[in-house]
Amino acid sequence: NLAPCTDFDKAYFHSYAHVGIHEEMIKDRVRTDTYRSAILQHQKHIEGKVVMDVGCGTGILAIFCAQAGAKRVYAVDASDIALQANEVVKANNLSDRIIVLHGRVEDVEIDEEVDVIVSEWMGYMLLYESMLGSVITARDRWLKRGGLILPSHATLYMAPITHPDRYTESIDFWRNVYGIDMSAMLPLAKQCAFEEPSVETISGENVLTWPHVVKYVDCYTLQNYELESVTTRFQFKSMMRAPFHGFAFWFDVEFNGPANLNTNAQILLPGSPNPPSLDGAVKKKRTNPNDTLILSTAPEDPPTHWQQTLIYFYEPIEVEQDQVIEGSLVLSQSKENRRFMNIHLEYSSGGRSFVKESVMR
Amino acid sequence: NLAPCTDFDKAYFHSYAHVGIHEEMIKDRVRTDTYRSAILQHQKHIEGKVVMDVGCGTGILAIFCAQAGAKRVYAVDASDIALQANEVVKANNLSDRIIVLHGRVEDVEIDEEVDVIVSEWMGYMLLYESMLGSVITARDRWLKRGGLILPSHATLYMAPITHPDRYTESIDFWRNVYGIDMSAMLPLAKQCAFEEPSVETISGENVLTWPHVVKYVDCYTLQNYELESVTTRFQFKSMMRAPFHGFAFWFDVEFNGPANLNTNAQILLPGSPNPPSLDGAVKKKRTNPNDTLILSTAPEDPPTHWQQTLIYFYEPIEVEQDQVIEGSLVLSQSKENRRFMNIHLEYSSGGRSFVKESVMR
Repeated sequence: NLAPCTDFDKAYFHSYAHVGIHEEMIKDRVRTDTYRSAILQHQKHIEGKVVMDVGCGTGILAIFCAQAGAKRVYAVDASDIALQANEVVKANNLSDRIIVLHGRVEDVEIDEEVDVIVSEWMGYMLLYESMLGSVITARDRWLKRGGLILPSHATLYMAPITHPDRYTESIDFWRNVYGIDMSAMLPLAKQCAFEEPSVETISGENVLTWPHVVKYVDCYTLQNYELESVTTRFQFKSMMRAPFHGFAFWFDVEFNGPANLNTNAQILLPGSPNPPSLDGAVKKKRTNPNDTLILSTAPEDPPTHWQQTLIYFYEPIEVEQDQVIEGSLVLSQSKENRRFMNIHLEYSSGGRSFVKESVMR
Repeated sequence: NLAPCTDFDKAYFHSYAHVGIHEEMIKDRVRTDTYRSAILQHQKHIEGKVVMDVGCGTGILAIFCAQAGAKRVYAVDASDIALQANEVVKANNLSDRIIVLHGRVEDVEIDEEVDVIVSEWMGYMLLYESMLGSVITARDRWLKRGGLILPSHATLYMAPITHPDRYTESIDFWRNVYGIDMSAMLPLAKQCAFEEPSVETISGENVLTWPHVVKYVDCYTLQNYELESVTTRFQFKSMMRAPFHGFAFWFDVEFNGPANLNTNAQILLPGSPNPPSLDGAVKKKRTNPNDTLILSTAPEDPPTHWQQTLIYFYEPIEVEQDQVIEGSLVLSQSKENRRFMNIHLEYSSGGRSFVKESVMR
């Protein structure tokens, strides 16, 4: 009962055949350095072991694993970029240790179990692209009991934001264009600018309060059906008086072992590390006593190619300090194309209620 | 025998229904300021006259013309943005003087001749989008003898360039990726980066010599069939020793009258102003004794949203000072979609000859 390969999947894989997207990802040093550090930090779980890189792209993570001493690395990618990865592997005389498989993890076959799965599967808003499902599929097909998954855990956050500059630039702009009142453009301008989610970089100053955890994912235990739809209720209290322009989404991922895996921290962890509370706002910076590596795409952290994902309202809401903002969010895979994400947002504040539907395509 | 409206045309018009593209164009102050100045400079030809704005977008140029005293302005656009232009016109109480026509100039009907045609029709590399043909069609259908066209003349230039930073960033990058030799990526990296024309901003320092005029267009006399294919032969002498990475293209347009039109300069011009020589390199800065307004997108001038269009080679050619670079160029409308442009480039230098085919889509 593995998902069949649709035309949408083919288009998705094709988009990764272009070199530019890999250049951008590799040049994101926050991303690539953190993965490399995580592989080195877990070297004792990798050395002499069998690894699978799910969605290997140009093969860079597979090569990091080989450099860390992996006995064998299966580097799997359904995009034609796998052909390039194979050339890179050959040119680096790693063909005896890295086996590039050009196909989907749902379709390829290997003859052994793996000790480690490494994958850079995160999309905008964490779940866009729906690649995590392929990691889960690989885990269920091949990962040994007690095996390692890198990253191990992921958290999607949301927070209300204010962004007057952005609103002025795209919307208020039309109120006075070379002295001409073009306010008649406003409804369409709002729709064009804010109908769909917008990927852009904001700063911590845009964020009105602590974030809320939309979804905490344990890659060791997650089941694929859980990804079809994610629902959360949120309640925020604005920490300042400001025009409330929309919600920002970002994520972080942790590189840790499963609950019973002895990591470099050399203590047995009582559970997954610092699981954020699932029903409320969390502190922005979680304490990190176990030296768990975290790749963060938060507004207050160094920017990455994921930036943040913004859902703007057509009209800002003026909120007072301590004013409550509450509502609910449903993220679901589009029925038409499961790589698209439907976003159903209900929110209310100051006695008014709103609904916003959008699709990330 | 007017061109029928194809599905490609519909897609083209649809691309202008999004507000963002109009925001970008209006915010290009070099563009919008120059058009406004040109309309004011020709106010005595506009005041009390009938004007047509071909491809009016949000209607801003039509409103400038109304502000300059036009008796009537026909603002024509086949994109749905025309509905917005109509709202803007109504909100500014200009409905009695600006008539928005939602359709192609090939299809709409008006009951009178016009004194002035204004249009911002220029695409990347001047001719991309093939919108100039619609201006010529409007001219032939409605412009009075001796009427004014703004802009009146356009020139497309090309010049050999060096751009080591760009080459290093996208190509040499793969030679050492986190210490890994990924040179096996180079052929695909070159193809992905340089197969198609690239719109980007370069500076005067990237240009190896004076530009060559690919095409000089007199909007008063141009015939539509001339746009189907443009051919030129070029010869350059590199002014320095450098790696020669490709050719840059840019354009300028002039706002002048026809040969026999008395402009604000209050002298009878002997011919179109400063027609560049058609078979060789020209000086970069033409003298401009008649205060003719020029909108330039040259690398040495302030940047515009058109930037420059670059055609890179897969391999740079090392040229010495005074080394000759020669060849030929054919720009032609794609048979499949006349809004696409086929670029056939032959060039030779230092005894080696090359051919590069690309398509601007």
